[in-house]
Amino acid sequence: MTEPSLTPPTIGVFDSGFGGLTVLAALIPRLPRARFAFIGDTARLPYGSKSRRTIARYAVESAQFLVREQGAEFLVIACNTASALALDAIQDAVSVPVLGVIEPGATAARAASKSGDVLVIATDATVQSHAYKAACATQNLRALEKACPLLVPLVEEGWTNHHVTQEIIRIYLDELITDAAATGLKPDALVLGCTHYPLLRPLIEQAVPAGIKVIDSAESTAEAAARLFNGRAKPHHANETGCPIQPGDTQPTSGWVGSDSSPAIETEIRCFATDSVEKFERLGSRFLGRPVGSVQLVDLGG
Amino acid sequence: MTEPSLTPPTIGVFDSGFGGLTVLAALIPRLPRARFAFIGDTARLPYGSKSRRTIARYAVESAQFLVREQGAEFLVIACNTASALALDAIQDAVSVPVLGVIEPGATAARAASKSGDVLVIATDATVQSHAYKAACATQNLRALEKACPLLVPLVEEGWTNHHVTQEIIRIYLDELITDAAATGLKPDALVLGCTHYPLLRPLIEQAVPAGIKVIDSAESTAEAAARLFNGRAKPHHANETGCPIQPGDTQPTSGWVGSDSSPAIETEIRCFATDSVEKFERLGSRFLGRPVGSVQLVDLGG
Repeated sequence: MTEPSLTPPTIGVFDSGFGGLTVLAALIPRLPRARFAFIGDTARLPYGSKSRRTIARYAVESAQFLVREQGAEFLVIACNTASALALDAIQDAVSVPVLGVIEPGATAARAASKSGDVLVIATDATVQSHAYKAACATQNLRALEKACPLLVPLVEEGWTNHHVTQEIIRIYLDELITDAAATGLKPDALVLGCTHYPLLRPLIEQAVPAGIKVIDSAESTAEAAARLFNGRAKPHHANETGCPIQPGDTQPTSGWVGSDSSPAIETEIRCFATDSVEKFERLGSRFLGRPVGSVQLVDLGG
Repeated sequence: MTEPSLTPPTIGVFDSGFGGLTVLAALIPRLPRARFAFIGDTARLPYGSKSRRTIARYAVESAQFLVREQGAEFLVIACNTASALALDAIQDAVSVPVLGVIEPGATAARAASKSGDVLVIATDATVQSHAYKAACATQNLRALEKACPLLVPLVEEGWTNHHVTQEIIRIYLDELITDAAATGLKPDALVLGCTHYPLLRPLIEQAVPAGIKVIDSAESTAEAAARLFNGRAKPHHANETGCPIQPGDTQPTSGWVGSDSSPAIETEIRCFATDSVEKFERLGSRFLGRPVGSVQLVDLGG
């Protein structure tokens, strides 16, 4: 048996682009002593308009990069589209635990909703997969999903506080709420089912009717990851193989897990992109809420 | 020497997505007896936000598919971004003549402009390449280029006649015209430097000031292709290898080239996509102006 190592564990975080940095931003304060390796498959983004087969192929390549080349012991799929369409394929392809964003989003919606009816906004591919509807159904929630394909380009254009974006959000939400009323739903929660959308949260909160709570799946996912990792984090045995973490499988909190009383430390973050690192470095800080530092270009062969 | 064959020649048309179908739509009436093979690299679109290296790699794979597997004897790169960033790479990779959309657009702008100052709207990658600026400079035109990243998603959302699209076009054009005035330009032509934009032409024409003519690079490219092919089209020798066509290198018009007096015939069009053929079949007709028929899925390995 190998001696325990004091190397902090590496958490791999994957997105098709930059949006998943909102999940990473939510993870850091919860797991400040972990090391993070983030990859954005920017050469092939956006996934939201592509087919299940293509998305699964792309997502598996990124997941394998994080595990095989970056030594990730735990993966967070910080992309709703990949979580919706490729979580099974990723879990089959790697031997470490994998957490997507859909289940935590549905769990947070369950906690927020009294009526049992929730709304979900997401990309085309996420909506067509009905992954949120299925995840909500297992929590006895009825979900109505709507694709909002213009919101990602608006965020990437930097129009996060623009009257045009406000008008587009109003149009999408009006359509969604009209559809909900027509099908007899009484929604009291709205799930942001895309990791770009937290940057539009102020405008979305202005546009939703009173009584509908906005749920950020980035926050929910980071909380779920910290909870699961909390049960697992301990000085690392080099020979230890990954195994699925069960939600109830908690162990004593280790030094890797942050708390309000943790001293301020510099979290180690390595960022990778499959296309233009300049663009990643320029735009990524908007999502991460701090400079992303130097980004390395990776060729996944696609 | 092989006997001449009467098989009509195949023209390969390539785009990152569906937009290039506007170029194909403009080609068909000009070359109604040619056969067309169109590929949309939909698994990896949009190219407009990606780097030169990645775009060149992707575009070459599609071009090789058209030549090697579909027997194309002439390629039209019906994508401004690929024309701007990958035309050289494509010409190096295949042995048939290759025509992009940038030069024809600049030539049409030269014909339309009296002041010698023109405006160009395009994707991020096309603008950053300054390919239009360079092509215009060879024609003694001064060009001011502007990236309009929201226009492609708006077309793909089907909002081609929507008040939000009108407002976004107004914002982009106001910024462009203000910048032109600030740099002392007196533009009298606006080039639509993206094959999605012809679907927005009515809204764009409403938004440009009087005295600025709108140039559709899809139309200009189809005219250039017909002119060049006109000089080349003749019963095909199977052993004939492709060679660059010079603009002045015209030969007598053959039966492949259409004219107003051509009898109505059914042009053969084969369409291929690297992702979801359903989406291509559903959206493609908007661009082609007729049903695209059955689309075949192609795996380029990316």
